Amino acid sequence: MERMNNKRIEKVIAGMHDLGVSQLLVSAPASVFYLTGKWIQPGERMLAFLVKDNGDTCLFANRLFALTGNVDCPLVEFDDTEDCVAVLAEHLGDGKVGIDKFWPSQFTIRLMEHRNAIRPVVGSAAVDMARLYKDADEIVLMQESSKKNDETILAVIPQLKAGMTEIEGSELYLKEAGARGATGPSFEPLVCFGANCAEPHHCSDRVSVLREGDSVIIDVGLVWKDYCSDMTRTVFLGEPTDEQKRVYDLVKKANAAGRAAVHPGVPVADVDRAARKVIEDAGYGPYFIHRTGHGIGLEVHEYPDISSASPAICKPGMCFSVEPGIYLPGRFGVRIEDLVCVTEDGATVLNAAPRELRVI
Amino acid sequence: MERMNNKRIEKVIAGMHDLGVSQLLVSAPASVFYLTGKWIQPGERMLAFLVKDNGDTCLFANRLFALTGNVDCPLVEFDDTEDCVAVLAEHLGDGKVGIDKFWPSQFTIRLMEHRNAIRPVVGSAAVDMARLYKDADEIVLMQESSKKNDETILAVIPQLKAGMTEIEGSELYLKEAGARGATGPSFEPLVCFGANCAEPHHCSDRVSVLREGDSVIIDVGLVWKDYCSDMTRTVFLGEPTDEQKRVYDLVKKANAAGRAAVHPGVPVADVDRAARKVIEDAGYGPYFIHRTGHGIGLEVHEYPDISSASPAICKPGMCFSVEPGIYLPGRFGVRIEDLVCVTEDGATVLNAAPRELRVI
Repeated sequence: MERMNNKRIEKVIAGMHDLGVSQLLVSAPASVFYLTGKWIQPGERMLAFLVKDNGDTCLFANRLFALTGNVDCPLVEFDDTEDCVAVLAEHLGDGKVGIDKFWPSQFTIRLMEHRNAIRPVVGSAAVDMARLYKDADEIVLMQESSKKNDETILAVIPQLKAGMTEIEGSELYLKEAGARGATGPSFEPLVCFGANCAEPHHCSDRVSVLREGDSVIIDVGLVWKDYCSDMTRTVFLGEPTDEQKRVYDLVKKANAAGRAAVHPGVPVADVDRAARKVIEDAGYGPYFIHRTGHGIGLEVHEYPDISSASPAICKPGMCFSVEPGIYLPGRFGVRIEDLVCVTEDGATVLNAAPRELRVI
Repeated sequence: MERMNNKRIEKVIAGMHDLGVSQLLVSAPASVFYLTGKWIQPGERMLAFLVKDNGDTCLFANRLFALTGNVDCPLVEFDDTEDCVAVLAEHLGDGKVGIDKFWPSQFTIRLMEHRNAIRPVVGSAAVDMARLYKDADEIVLMQESSKKNDETILAVIPQLKAGMTEIEGSELYLKEAGARGATGPSFEPLVCFGANCAEPHHCSDRVSVLREGDSVIIDVGLVWKDYCSDMTRTVFLGEPTDEQKRVYDLVKKANAAGRAAVHPGVPVADVDRAARKVIEDAGYGPYFIHRTGHGIGLEVHEYPDISSASPAICKPGMCFSVEPGIYLPGRFGVRIEDLVCVTEDGATVLNAAPRELRVI
């Protein structure tokens, strides 16, 4: 029997008050897991966990998922022959209903058709904001996940050899992560070589071969007890040029400056600024072409964006990436990424793998 | 420049008339591709292709997807700083708007907030019903995709050997499909052994090893020029028992009966019935625990269900699977699956790989 997490439900109810909704339908699988302890992947079927502001909850799920006895909250089951939206509508009051931003529109529309006194509003922020601040149990798992990721990347780097393809590098990571007990990767592992490193959205391919003089970006993460890690190291095959060394050193300083800026009360935009300033001051600003980082937890990309446009403020429990990079089109690229967790008086860096320039 | 497909848009407009909507927002990537020739994976961003019943169309997409010059329909672009839903709302008339069943609720809700005279209704059936009947171009690609799938499975079967794990079998399929030019698998290839064959939802694992006496289910498909294939063959490692032979023979007959029932005008429920009857008459009814098949095309699961509950009638251009099976818990399972395409006077079977009992 999975246990409901009542402290987390209280956090969600506080968020519902902020949004002005007294009833909320949670449907994102990671959010349902966060509150009920149960992963349910509904596919095309309806899934909703109802939270009312008096603390009442109820899970609505297809009988196929065999939840009886597996969750400790009130449960309403239905099968494919029933009108599941009509069943759900009976449990809702009139007025505003908070709806998950990604809930398929067919359910929202049919809910309004069944109960025209219902007014749907986008309500998933109530859960997303709760998930933003990791509790003590979650922080332990985030630390463990990143420790496994450190161990895995350090096992992979010495195995990278001239002549290897990017996808072979990526498969090495999957194998080493599996050997350390990871459930799987938290995203498709990215190992890329030379000029491909200058395209932040390049995916490991089967044709690019590691050659002397290449930079190698290894951007990887794994899932450990449901929690995601994500880190990047850049190494070089053979002695780097002076420019490669200079760019590497700049990115290392930008990463350190970003991490050093993380402190409770500091706007995340200032974390972005701190990392970006190092690169801009050296004249490489136009080559740092993405945000500095992103939140992470049960999912690899969560709130907030670490960017100049983000209104978020660092608060204890927030976990996010700091990942500045410099990308020189057609030539090479460098990125160094660590996860940080905001504490009461500063920040913990979840990754410990060395950031010194490494030649393989 | 990708070409819009005006014949397909006419089919969609006919479907809009049936639904009573004069404006439709198409957002499923496969449906947008079907109409515009362009695959766009919007991730969390808004994507909508507006079809009006006078034939006007307009694509709304984030500037990130760089569509200018790449599509030949009117295009409205926006970036992350703009309120894309407000932009879209300006282009809609009052009253009913057909919405894709899977469009994230946040867009539907914000559309209503911007324009309270808009009444969203679930409208994706207008495209789904058009996609149900493949046109001549699509049928050629469906045939080619299944031909590649036949070739791939026939290359894989002789490589299956005692001691191999299921995931090794699955990886063999991926390698052979790639070697034949497939873009990728149309779903995670399923190779399973022995008692695992009795669980239709088992996934290939790293621990189950092929042993003498095992049945082997190989349920695989690939993507070829955007179109999906999907087939199943069951083979045996070593001489099968009399019961295995009897069950195999029954499933082969059920598959043949299902295929033989496909004819324009026949309810798909009768196709299910024809296949199921063979198995029920032999007393194995309780062990055929799923629908007989599903539609397929740009996606591996499309309308209709081939089940007793389906109201669909076979009409020329429909492509679907016929995949009866018998699953004896804890022991073994057999499934044989082919794709069929309804023609003017019968049906074409898209798979030609032999169905005779094969011992490896």
